[in-house]
Amino acid sequence: MNPAATPEPGTPLNAEQVAALVDGTLEGETEQYFEHVRDFESATKSDVVFFRSGPNETGRAPAQAELDAFQNTAGGLRLVDAATDVNGRVCIRVGNPGLAAAKLAQHWEAYIAETAMGIHPTAVVDKAAEVDISACIGPHCVIAAGAVIGAHANLVSGVHVGEGSRVGDACILNPGVVLGPRVEMGQQCVVQANAVIGSAGFGYVWSGSEHVHMPQVGGVQIGERVEIGANSCIDAGTFQPTVIGDNCLLDNHVQVGHNCKIGRFVILCGKVGISGSVEIGDGAIFAGSSGAAGHISIGPGAKVGAKAAVTSDVPAGATYAGNPAVDFGLHQRMQVMLRRMARPKD
Amino acid sequence: MNPAATPEPGTPLNAEQVAALVDGTLEGETEQYFEHVRDFESATKSDVVFFRSGPNETGRAPAQAELDAFQNTAGGLRLVDAATDVNGRVCIRVGNPGLAAAKLAQHWEAYIAETAMGIHPTAVVDKAAEVDISACIGPHCVIAAGAVIGAHANLVSGVHVGEGSRVGDACILNPGVVLGPRVEMGQQCVVQANAVIGSAGFGYVWSGSEHVHMPQVGGVQIGERVEIGANSCIDAGTFQPTVIGDNCLLDNHVQVGHNCKIGRFVILCGKVGISGSVEIGDGAIFAGSSGAAGHISIGPGAKVGAKAAVTSDVPAGATYAGNPAVDFGLHQRMQVMLRRMARPKD
Amino acid sequence: MNPAATPEPGTPLNAEQVAALVDGTLEGETEQYFEHVRDFESATKSDVVFFRSGPNETGRAPAQAELDAFQNTAGGLRLVDAATDVNGRVCIRVGNPGLAAAKLAQHWEAYIAETAMGIHPTAVVDKAAEVDISACIGPHCVIAAGAVIGAHANLVSGVHVGEGSRVGDACILNPGVVLGPRVEMGQQCVVQANAVIGSAGFGYVWSGSEHVHMPQVGGVQIGERVEIGANSCIDAGTFQPTVIGDNCLLDNHVQVGHNCKIGRFVILCGKVGISGSVEIGDGAIFAGSSGAAGHISIGPGAKVGAKAAVTSDVPAGATYAGNPAVDFGLHQRMQVMLRRMARPKD
Repeated sequence: MNPAATPEPGTPLNAEQVAALVDGTLEGETEQYFEHVRDFESATKSDVVFFRSGPNETGRAPAQAELDAFQNTAGGLRLVDAATDVNGRVCIRVGNPGLAAAKLAQHWEAYIAETAMGIHPTAVVDKAAEVDISACIGPHCVIAAGAVIGAHANLVSGVHVGEGSRVGDACILNPGVVLGPRVEMGQQCVVQANAVIGSAGFGYVWSGSEHVHMPQVGGVQIGERVEIGANSCIDAGTFQPTVIGDNCLLDNHVQVGHNCKIGRFVILCGKVGISGSVEIGDGAIFAGSSGAAGHISIGPGAKVGAKAAVTSDVPAGATYAGNPAVDFGLHQRMQVMLRRMARPKD
Repeated sequence: MNPAATPEPGTPLNAEQVAALVDGTLEGETEQYFEHVRDFESATKSDVVFFRSGPNETGRAPAQAELDAFQNTAGGLRLVDAATDVNGRVCIRVGNPGLAAAKLAQHWEAYIAETAMGIHPTAVVDKAAEVDISACIGPHCVIAAGAVIGAHANLVSGVHVGEGSRVGDACILNPGVVLGPRVEMGQQCVVQANAVIGSAGFGYVWSGSEHVHMPQVGGVQIGERVEIGANSCIDAGTFQPTVIGDNCLLDNHVQVGHNCKIGRFVILCGKVGISGSVEIGDGAIFAGSSGAAGHISIGPGAKVGAKAAVTSDVPAGATYAGNPAVDFGLHQRMQVMLRRMARPKD
Repeated sequence: MNPAATPEPGTPLNAEQVAALVDGTLEGETEQYFEHVRDFESATKSDVVFFRSGPNETGRAPAQAELDAFQNTAGGLRLVDAATDVNGRVCIRVGNPGLAAAKLAQHWEAYIAETAMGIHPTAVVDKAAEVDISACIGPHCVIAAGAVIGAHANLVSGVHVGEGSRVGDACILNPGVVLGPRVEMGQQCVVQANAVIGSAGFGYVWSGSEHVHMPQVGGVQIGERVEIGANSCIDAGTFQPTVIGDNCLLDNHVQVGHNCKIGRFVILCGKVGISGSVEIGDGAIFAGSSGAAGHISIGPGAKVGAKAAVTSDVPAGATYAGNPAVDFGLHQRMQVMLRRMARPKD
């Protein structure tokens, strides 16, 4: 068997095949075939485990207990970086063990997630909609007139796709997802259950006696490889689309208001709320439950701390925290000052 | 053609008809027919654009760039107030250009949103429910016993209406909306996708060994012309209904706890959380992600700042901010004081 | 009639039967039969009302207006504690009037909530799923392969149960609830509408050019008698399940990240956000809109104030508040200090 050949998704792999798939260097020998990536505690000899000696992207380094658990795991194959001592056990050296583990898990789990092709008999697809023959339209889905569903797209169940919306190739829309009208979604996006994309933005004009709704007909334009969390909401723009760039990651309960223009590789953690008409540059990160007031601009690579409330423009690369949010250094000094003053006098 | 006659919804309009519809004064002449309201950048000669010279309701005044874009737009007809110079181009003068634009957009977009009448064959309607013949019950809706659906109501798809609930005339319930039992909704309400109205309130009594749920059977009573955002929740009252008054506007991810009594024209922006048994007076405004603790009273016309946490009664007309929320002036001074102290010494 | 015999659920009760059901002592006589628990204002002579003289679990004591309303109620039977004067009217003395009222309300309301047995013809149940004959699978539900639905479970409508998930006996899953794959739910849980349990956790590894999703295959393990609010989300663990212990109460819009281990009797109020890999001890309470950063530990019985942002471990029994959250006493002093300094000078 040629270890360099791409293996069938879902199949068990031997150590050479694992090394080839993750582009690593095998140290030691084993006859074992492997079937899963697992955590140290629950792993058995047919499982691959992984360990990172330094801090990960979020700055968290492994605790001593983690290292001990790693050393004592029953897992049959270790993915490690150059700095990790494996006490002579079989291992594969890679630059980024977490990344290697993710690739392996995708190899095995993609197989499990394989779905049926075709339109379920309980789905309601408008005559004027266009569904690729390789797409899966699950039970109780509704596809409105003018909608287009791409190749290998998977609408799991109870998904609603509004008029004229387009779902790109290989997108996964989980149960209960609602796409309003005029939503364009690029390929390989994943939307978690009960998220709502393209509902009418919160736009009203006061007439002197009541709020008159301004129709919101701009829709939403979502790039490729975007992930959107459960119960999140992205509102339709007023005249132009609300935009989410390629490779953005939105966690659960995220709200993006109408007319926002969000760049690429932006991360919005759980419960982030972005008001209307906010511009966010590439690679910016909003930590959990933070938010931005309307009509402001967040520079590329900016970071906003958990629960921070940004009320004015944030420069590129800056880190902001607090409510109202200020530069992180200033925020820290304010907190230290306050605690010092509040300390009981001796 | 008589320009004062009410035009068919959705039809193109000439400049005289536009002026009549928005009750404005036409300056200049054009043979053009118009079909949409658009933003300055994307407008073409068959589009109407609008410009406001002063600040809008939220206090935001147009930037110079906006004025420039307005002057250079390709849009064929300008809606402006008295103070705006149009450099001799064709325009219609009105008191409130935004309001005029909203009316025009409703004229054109209402046509697009027109829906089929009748009950979709996949909907499940209890024999003991009552559905007006002009209502639209879309695919996969479920209408429980004793429910009443009014004239021209539009339940788009996958909507659940619980036992004994009433949906008023011309209400729009978007996909996935859930109404629990005993929800009364007045006419012309709009509920965005996956919102939940009338689920059981969070009420328990500690028995000494466990929390015993107090059944919540009061339902929800919603006035007329109320708008409720996507994924928002309004809990059922314990014995009496939770009340939302006429003309309230609730954005996405809003939570209203059980037994709240909310007046008319109240605005709850995105992610606002109102605990149980809170009273809110007419015209109060909660900015994004703010909230109120249980069993307090918010006076009419009060304003609560973004991410503020109100923990005690707020007087009528007051503005509160911070966590715990205090009078806005005090909050401002606290912030200024803190920043000054944290400033590095020269 | 023997007053000690357990009455049929939903039937009217005379005063002796009420006293027996709540284990209280009847004072006075009445021929009246009772049918509901109600609030003082709307009660009529066939209704039971209740009054607590001291503060309840949340520390709130009744206001004078409440006592007056109680004295003047038209309700025919009063549930009171030893300290409450009823001016000679018929009453039942119990240790905890609120608890007694909850038991009575459950007696009457359980009757109303009785549901049909069996699988609705519009439900889609995989051949490889197992549904107890006494369960109710409502309209438009989807049950995937390998799922198991317990006795007397009630899936109201539009519920999705993913592959291999198990729903315990007598669970209630309200409309639009989504269970991803590998969710285990103990008996007598209640999940409110549109909640999502077991969607993929927010886990990615940066490859140098993009975020690679780490498949999240650990599922969710939920204990017995857990209640989960509307539009809440509990993410699946990476390799091991995210765990929610017995008797936990989660309100609406709560988010629990992947790999959390939450003990028993924990209360997460509305809009609480718990990041990934957080451990929470038995009996801890998070007030509304509070949250915890990832990879920290909250001790048993700890309390976290409304909108607080916990960023480091919290000791058992401690009370924390603020952002970043600190010990409540320190937080209070910080607030007092700040207000004092901001007070205008005389």
